[in-house]
Amino acid sequence: MWNIHRYNEQYGQEEEDIVAVEYPLTIVVNGEEFATMVCTPMDMEDLVIGFLASEGVILTYRELTSLTIDEERGFAYVETSRSVPFVKEGQKRWLGSCCGKSRAFYFQSDAATAKTAVDTTSFSPDECYQLMESFHQEAGMFKQTGGVHQAAIAGVSGILKAYTDIGRHNALDKLYGWMLRKQVSPKEKIVIFSGRISSEVLLKVSKMRFGLLLSKSAPTDLALQLADDLNITAAGFVRGNRMNVYTHPGRVKEESKGGVMIE
Amino acid sequence: MWNIHRYNEQYGQEEEDIVAVEYPLTIVVNGEEFATMVCTPMDMEDLVIGFLASEGVILTYRELTSLTIDEERGFAYVETSRSVPFVKEGQKRWLGSCCGKSRAFYFQSDAATAKTAVDTTSFSPDECYQLMESFHQEAGMFKQTGGVHQAAIAGVSGILKAYTDIGRHNALDKLYGWMLRKQVSPKEKIVIFSGRISSEVLLKVSKMRFGLLLSKSAPTDLALQLADDLNITAAGFVRGNRMNVYTHPGRVKEESKGGVMIE
Repeated sequence: MWNIHRYNEQYGQEEEDIVAVEYPLTIVVNGEEFATMVCTPMDMEDLVIGFLASEGVILTYRELTSLTIDEERGFAYVETSRSVPFVKEGQKRWLGSCCGKSRAFYFQSDAATAKTAVDTTSFSPDECYQLMESFHQEAGMFKQTGGVHQAAIAGVSGILKAYTDIGRHNALDKLYGWMLRKQVSPKEKIVIFSGRISSEVLLKVSKMRFGLLLSKSAPTDLALQLADDLNITAAGFVRGNRMNVYTHPGRVKEESKGGVMIE
Repeated sequence: MWNIHRYNEQYGQEEEDIVAVEYPLTIVVNGEEFATMVCTPMDMEDLVIGFLASEGVILTYRELTSLTIDEERGFAYVETSRSVPFVKEGQKRWLGSCCGKSRAFYFQSDAATAKTAVDTTSFSPDECYQLMESFHQEAGMFKQTGGVHQAAIAGVSGILKAYTDIGRHNALDKLYGWMLRKQVSPKEKIVIFSGRISSEVLLKVSKMRFGLLLSKSAPTDLALQLADDLNITAAGFVRGNRMNVYTHPGRVKEESKGGVMIE
């Protein structure tokens, strides 16, 4: 709660307002400081698990042997069964040498963990619009504070799990952590994201092995190059009864059950 | 340009669409890889200069002795007169020991470069609304691609310089680089930003020595703690004829005191 001066035209008055919490969390892996992120301090276990998997620090959930979070000081202490290569190495700039496209992977760790999507499940445009509508209905915190991102995993029947976070990619990492912890398969499911489809967002979706990503926002060209390479269907500006499908449009199909397509 | 499938209800049709470019730029300082950022490949000199100043790698513009950008491969090669302390140190998590507030600086480099704002220039609510309106008029690229952030420096007479970038903080770094290069004083000027007021945004505004920040979006609690500590007036949700002033409301006054006309 903050005391603010709310101005309407020339006139300000003091009021209380709810503001999104921004919480610095430092992840220590096997005694070494690995990264500091800013997050919404909820579901931090899933955040840490998903982030470590996304960065390639753990390749399976079982490689995580211990996880303790010191909420007071903002530290997560992690032990892994496999020793982690020198931290900076994983994030060293890496340029593919063969062609234009491979340049899209600009970190070595991404080239190692991103995989071509194999799931071929398709969704009708109406199913996409309805899932985006359900997604919005879950976004209570966003409406209150206007400062958080949201990501969800959905099946054709609706939203299965949704997370919010102030950090652009943390909501996706939380989903990834939840999937690993609960052994949830990405098959016949999609990811919905509130923010822009950047290369980092696309890579996370690839690492989580999804084939279809819906966003209410715009993509970048680098994200679309990656989506093209990694066989991911990227749909942006999913708003109301409209959307743009940028890559691999085969996972969005017009026919509904038993319907006849008219051309 | 991308070929997309634009769906309106059930019906998709192929069209061309403009997509924002996301370009990885790696900054090499005195032969050592310092950071990789994703940016819009425009005004990269200002971006590099502002980023290095913001990170405390250069303390004055003169400390930058050489800057070469390899646009083809996405590398910026920088030489500085002062040797840069071991890179990771600057970003090591740092917790102040005395009180709750000092915890807000969670990187040591920020504690060294962020400074208390001293400019006392005030702007009237109407001036704030009008500057936000001018700011929107500059945002051509945002309207085209829907995927970039924008930041501007303004005086009471209008926008002095505006930059857009796909990276959340890059547009601010570009402004900072421009100020250093052109020796522009922050006195009687304000910063306008399209995105959320996060702790990082607030710290950049502090490093650039501004007293007033307008954003069309929401702040976070950590950003407001910092604004409170650093004597910065943070105004969010500046939309139409309304805004919320969260901290140090003295710089928003019905009668503008300062705000000298620029040129």
